[in-house]
Amino acid sequence: MTSTFDFNDRFSQLIAEMKLDGRYRTFAQLERIAGEFPQALWRHPDGSSRRVTVWCSNDYLGMGQHGDVTAAMHRAIDRSGAGTGGTRNISGTNLVHVQLETELADLHGKEAALIFTSGWVSNLAALGTLGRLLPGCAIFSDALNHNSMIEGIRRSGAERFIFRHNDVAHLDELLGAVDPARPKIVAFESVYSMDGDIAPIAAICEVAEKHGAITYLDEVHAVGLYGPRGGGIAERDGVTHRVTLIEGTLAKAFGVMGGYVAGSALMIDIIRSFADSFIFTTSLSPHLAAGALAAVRHLKNNGDLRLRQRRNVEKLKSMLLDAGMPVLDSPSHILPLMIGDSHRCRLTSELLLAEHGIYIQPINYPTVPRGRERLRITPSPFHADEHMTHLLNALLAVRSRIDWPLAKAA
Amino acid sequence: MTSTFDFNDRFSQLIAEMKLDGRYRTFAQLERIAGEFPQALWRHPDGSSRRVTVWCSNDYLGMGQHGDVTAAMHRAIDRSGAGTGGTRNISGTNLVHVQLETELADLHGKEAALIFTSGWVSNLAALGTLGRLLPGCAIFSDALNHNSMIEGIRRSGAERFIFRHNDVAHLDELLGAVDPARPKIVAFESVYSMDGDIAPIAAICEVAEKHGAITYLDEVHAVGLYGPRGGGIAERDGVTHRVTLIEGTLAKAFGVMGGYVAGSALMIDIIRSFADSFIFTTSLSPHLAAGALAAVRHLKNNGDLRLRQRRNVEKLKSMLLDAGMPVLDSPSHILPLMIGDSHRCRLTSELLLAEHGIYIQPINYPTVPRGRERLRITPSPFHADEHMTHLLNALLAVRSRIDWPLAKAA
Ligand SMILES: Cc1ncc(COP(=O)(O)O)c(C=O)c1O
Ligand SMILES: Cc1ncc(COP(=O)(O)O)c(C=O)c1O
Repeated sequence: MTSTFDFNDRFSQLIAEMKLDGRYRTFAQLERIAGEFPQALWRHPDGSSRRVTVWCSNDYLGMGQHGDVTAAMHRAIDRSGAGTGGTRNISGTNLVHVQLETELADLHGKEAALIFTSGWVSNLAALGTLGRLLPGCAIFSDALNHNSMIEGIRRSGAERFIFRHNDVAHLDELLGAVDPARPKIVAFESVYSMDGDIAPIAAICEVAEKHGAITYLDEVHAVGLYGPRGGGIAERDGVTHRVTLIEGTLAKAFGVMGGYVAGSALMIDIIRSFADSFIFTTSLSPHLAAGALAAVRHLKNNGDLRLRQRRNVEKLKSMLLDAGMPVLDSPSHILPLMIGDSHRCRLTSELLLAEHGIYIQPINYPTVPRGRERLRITPSPFHADEHMTHLLNALLAVRSRIDWPLAKAA
Repeated sequence: MTSTFDFNDRFSQLIAEMKLDGRYRTFAQLERIAGEFPQALWRHPDGSSRRVTVWCSNDYLGMGQHGDVTAAMHRAIDRSGAGTGGTRNISGTNLVHVQLETELADLHGKEAALIFTSGWVSNLAALGTLGRLLPGCAIFSDALNHNSMIEGIRRSGAERFIFRHNDVAHLDELLGAVDPARPKIVAFESVYSMDGDIAPIAAICEVAEKHGAITYLDEVHAVGLYGPRGGGIAERDGVTHRVTLIEGTLAKAFGVMGGYVAGSALMIDIIRSFADSFIFTTSLSPHLAAGALAAVRHLKNNGDLRLRQRRNVEKLKSMLLDAGMPVLDSPSHILPLMIGDSHRCRLTSELLLAEHGIYIQPINYPTVPRGRERLRITPSPFHADEHMTHLLNALLAVRSRIDWPLAKAA
């Protein structure tokens, strides 16, 4: 047996490298407290708990605690139980799945929609399937696309061309260099979650149309948040009809869990019929679909939470900029506070938690490039002015003790 | 634009081919009725509904309607809301996630466990990551492995060797032909969901150990159902300690949704730290974890449902065999009724539903090979003797009208 491979040795070494590099993650344990968002209970590794203010949730509008959503979930559990006990095809399709798909199609002005167990799986399924079924397919992918799109493209086996982030001229150039007869897909996001910047959707569609390419837009960080009905940036910009497929999540602004793709009836039928990650898995629990349906409907008809969120984002951003904090002046609801070093980023986060009762997870490589480590702040409609003052004072206190390399550059 | 690719043409053609082939699927719409399992409401495409008996659910023990499970979910929604609003690393880890992981590790006698949004994702994540991180890795995969394992192996980029289904000698031969110094993983299932047969786990472990390979066992169709605590076939056979990693689902016998992997602390830490499909997605909603935790605990401490299920499986199997039905005499809780033609399989299912109020989804290609189309019957603890008599009579009536090619062979 001496010649066989030593698994533990190899794995221990990988973990040791991560630790050295500051990339090893330990998960902070947080209990959300329904009805008191953005407050949560932080459980210290020693077992004790403490109330903290969460400033990094992707439940952007607090819909995860909204009465409409939780009531719909309770009702659905009482009616249909905990799960479906089957794939969509084998006893796992309920009325509420169909209703949610209809509602999401309507939200995006599309003929049809299909739900998945997560946004991650939606991207894997949709891109993986379309690219695989189109002979000679070329996929043009924004350089900052999310891991789930990259995995979908990889799975498709299609040739991948990466265009510089939000660079329409570069996209045009790349599209023009490929045989016009080949099927082409342009894959990109609307709001990029780490920098909070926004894609020029109309310009991208224009270039795609010119070259006969279809467009695939990830609106995971925009659905529920932008546009008069929460249809995302494409809705806000009035270009929904020009985007071929729109992908979204039920787990961020809609507060629940799951993902979806909306598009033409034919393309949705293709994904439904061919995507392994859709076919061979238990369907979303009916009560999750019911909760998401309530969230989508609420945000379609009410803009209040969006308005309050926007006000809070603007207010906090001014406060941080006025204090000389290295925050990116993003056009979205995401405020990246640039630190630029993995150890110092982690330490900043630890001090905020331990000394100020503020929880903002450090964002390190591989989620962002090395040297671009940051705290990613997401103000919600429920962060009051006192929360903001408290956060600012805490950041000032921490900055006086830790050197943030990027603070000078900013 | 005349030279550009016609997407609709290509996609329409693919759908037309499926329809011709009898592979096109339309999803029956079913409402489960909590408290009345295995009864459900079947919604006719015209909008009317009808009560039917479900005979093909993978909520094998009806835990999806168990009071412990639904009560735990209600409480968790009241406490923490609908979702986590974050990835496990970014504000998405709750106490209940950790408790569930501890409980699952204990269930399988392992040091650690990690939960995912589905069993499908567990397999993609675990196999994809391990195979990718082991230089020169060779993965030995049972010929009938589930799609999710195949996708994980594909994602890993490791070299794949397929051994004949449950054929230990063939596995030994393949393992022996590969350089002993290469890292090797043997991936297989315990209960195969379509034929209901069971792997010789001890013999496979023996061969794997001989060649210094680690073992990866999918117990998706066995956890909760076999072994004194519901630890699966490995527990029943007393070989849990010999299997390196055990994968399971929270969506079948445990009745909820989600998946997991259990193994050594080091290997689980590796998957946790490197698997994209774990890192870049919103974590499982706390109430799903709470419901699954209640189900696992209940089935650890109570064997009643398992006993009642076993009795019903044996009883129905005898009834079907006595009536000359082409049912495979499987050693598990899965009773495949072999039809052998996709159109006739679908028609059988349609007649059962329309004329007898019995729902059993036809299983066609690609889920099973062409020519092996079937109805897959899964008796639960809640199917009464009247349900069985009703099913038998319905099958007799349908068989008198439809020619089942495989009935003659059986
Ligand atoms: C751009 C983008 N797409 C997709 C996803 C995946 O969505 P989900 O969390 O629903 O899996 C995420 C993050 O989680 C994301 O940031
Ligand atoms: C053997 C096997 N593994 C994994 C899965 C996936 O589990 P889940 O439904 O939790 O995604 C399934 C079926 O769904 C299966 O049959």
